[in-house]
Amino acid sequence: VSRPIPLIDAAATADPPPFARVGIVGLGLIGGSVALAARRRWPSSLIVGVDRNAVLEDAQRAHAIDVGADDLGMVAEVDLVVLAMPVIANLDALPRLDTILGPDAIVTDVGSTKRAIVEAAGALREGITFIGGHPLAGAARGGIGAATADLFQNRPWVLTPSASTPPAAVDRLEAFIRALGALPQRMTPQDHDRVTAWVSHLPQLAASALMRVIGEAVDEEGLSLSGRGLRDTTRLASSPADIWIDVCRTNRDHIGDALDRLLRELGTLRQALDDPAAIQELFGAAAAWRERLR
Amino acid sequence: VSRPIPLIDAAATADPPPFARVGIVGLGLIGGSVALAARRRWPSSLIVGVDRNAVLEDAQRAHAIDVGADDLGMVAEVDLVVLAMPVIANLDALPRLDTILGPDAIVTDVGSTKRAIVEAAGALREGITFIGGHPLAGAARGGIGAATADLFQNRPWVLTPSASTPPAAVDRLEAFIRALGALPQRMTPQDHDRVTAWVSHLPQLAASALMRVIGEAVDEEGLSLSGRGLRDTTRLASSPADIWIDVCRTNRDHIGDALDRLLRELGTLRQALDDPAAIQELFGAAAAWRERLR
Repeated sequence: VSRPIPLIDAAATADPPPFARVGIVGLGLIGGSVALAARRRWPSSLIVGVDRNAVLEDAQRAHAIDVGADDLGMVAEVDLVVLAMPVIANLDALPRLDTILGPDAIVTDVGSTKRAIVEAAGALREGITFIGGHPLAGAARGGIGAATADLFQNRPWVLTPSASTPPAAVDRLEAFIRALGALPQRMTPQDHDRVTAWVSHLPQLAASALMRVIGEAVDEEGLSLSGRGLRDTTRLASSPADIWIDVCRTNRDHIGDALDRLLRELGTLRQALDDPAAIQELFGAAAAWRERLR
Repeated sequence: VSRPIPLIDAAATADPPPFARVGIVGLGLIGGSVALAARRRWPSSLIVGVDRNAVLEDAQRAHAIDVGADDLGMVAEVDLVVLAMPVIANLDALPRLDTILGPDAIVTDVGSTKRAIVEAAGALREGITFIGGHPLAGAARGGIGAATADLFQNRPWVLTPSASTPPAAVDRLEAFIRALGALPQRMTPQDHDRVTAWVSHLPQLAASALMRVIGEAVDEEGLSLSGRGLRDTTRLASSPADIWIDVCRTNRDHIGDALDRLLRELGTLRQALDDPAAIQELFGAAAAWRERLR
C-alpha cells in the first residue's frame, strides 16, 4: 500500500514521536480517530491498522493508516498496540498478542470498562506492558466514516496503570494521548468503572429504555407531537448494541447499583406526583446538578 | 405607554387580523413569544399583557406588548385572551374572566395539560368560548428574555375544541395560530394528555431523576468525566419546577402509567445485564424508534 499524503500539524516537525510504529486494532470511531490524530501529529510515524478489509479500504481512503490487514499478526512489530474493538473482542485478543509481540511493546485499549481487561492483561508475559485506557469522547454516529483527528481535543482520557506498571511507560503513553489533544487522567480500574456506570452507562440505558417505551406507547403519530426535549433526551438511543452488550457484561455490578438507584428515585416520584414539595425538591436538585455540567 | 415601533412582516400588510385586540396573561417564554409573533404578523393589533411589573417592563422593552398591567382586569376588552401562566394559575384565572370579559370573547390557553382546564372552562357563562390549546414548542431557557417571534415556526399547536364549540371560533383561532407559524392540530383533551404524558412529561421526569441520582452518586469530580451524551440526556433537567408541579398534578394518572411502564422496562433490563439477546433487543427497538424522531 502506498503512503498517503499526510496532513501536516504545526507542531509536527519538531519532536520525535513517542511511538514510531503504532498498531490500531479496530478502526471504528475511536480507533479511526486515534489513527487520524496520530497521523496528523507525527507524519513520520507508521500507522498499522487491523480490521475487516472493507473497513481497511475506508481507513486508507481517509488517510488514517499506512498499512493494514485483516489479521492481528500485522501488529507484531509495532511499539504501541491500541485495542479499539468492543470490550470483549479486546479481551479475546490478549492471548494472541502475548505470543506475537516483541519485547518492550506497550499495549493499551480504549474500551468503556477497565476492570475486566486490566485483570485479563495480568496474564500477559513479562516485558509486555499493558495500560488500560478510555478516551471519554464520542459522536452522534460510529464507524470510520465519523472518525476525526479532533475527536479527543480537550476531552478526558483515563489511564489505569497499576502499582507495578513501569512509570516510564505510563509517561510515554500520556505524552502520546496528550499530543492527540486529550487530557490524560489516572484512575484505578475500580474507580473508573464505578464512575462511568453513572455518567455514561446509566444515561445510555435510560435513554434506550425511554425511547422504546415511548415509541411503543404512542407510535409514530404520537411522536410527531414531540420536540427538541425528547430528541435530546433520547439521542443516545441510536447507539449500536454490540458495544453496549460488552459494557453491560463487564460492568454489571456497578450498572446494577445505578439502575437500582434510578428505579428507587422514579418509584418515589411516581408516588409523589401530586406532592408539590417533592416535585420542587427533585427539580431543584436536578437543576443544580445540571448547572455543574456546563 | 407609547406604542413601540413594530417589526413589519412581509405578509403583514394585507389581511385583517383574526383578533384586533389580544390579551396575553403571563409573559414567559410562550406568552412572550405569542406576543412577539402576533405583533410581527399584525402590527396594527393591540397586544395587552398581564404579568408582574418587572416582567411587563421587559416585555415592553422587547416590543412584545403595547400596554400591560399587573391585573387581570386589563384584558376585559380584548377579543382573544391567551392564558399563558402555569396550568393551575390558568385554572384559577377562569372565574375572574367569567365576570370581566365582554360577550363573544374567545379564551384559549397554552398550558401543557388540557383535561383539567377544559373541564373547568365548562363553568364559564354562555357567550365566552373557551378552546384549550398547547403549542409544542420550547427552548433551553424560559422567561420573556428567551421569547422569540419564531418559536412556533412549523411546530404543532394542539387545539382541543369540544362538540359544542362554535366552529367559527375554532377556525378563527386556527387562523391566528397558523399565522404565528404553527401547525394547528385538533385533538380531544383526553388524547392530548395521554400522548404528552409519554412524549413530553415522562422524558422530563426521567431526565430530572437521572440528573439527580447521577450528581449525588459521583459529585462534581465524577461529572467531569461526562460528555455530550450525559449533557443531551439531561438537558431537560434545567426546567423550572413551578410549571411541572402543575403538570404532574393535572396529568398524574397518565404520567403514573408512563412511569410504571418505564419502571418495568428498567427493572427487566436490570435483570438482563448479562443477557446479550435482551440488550440487543432493547437497543434494536430503541434505535428504530429513535430513527422515526428525525
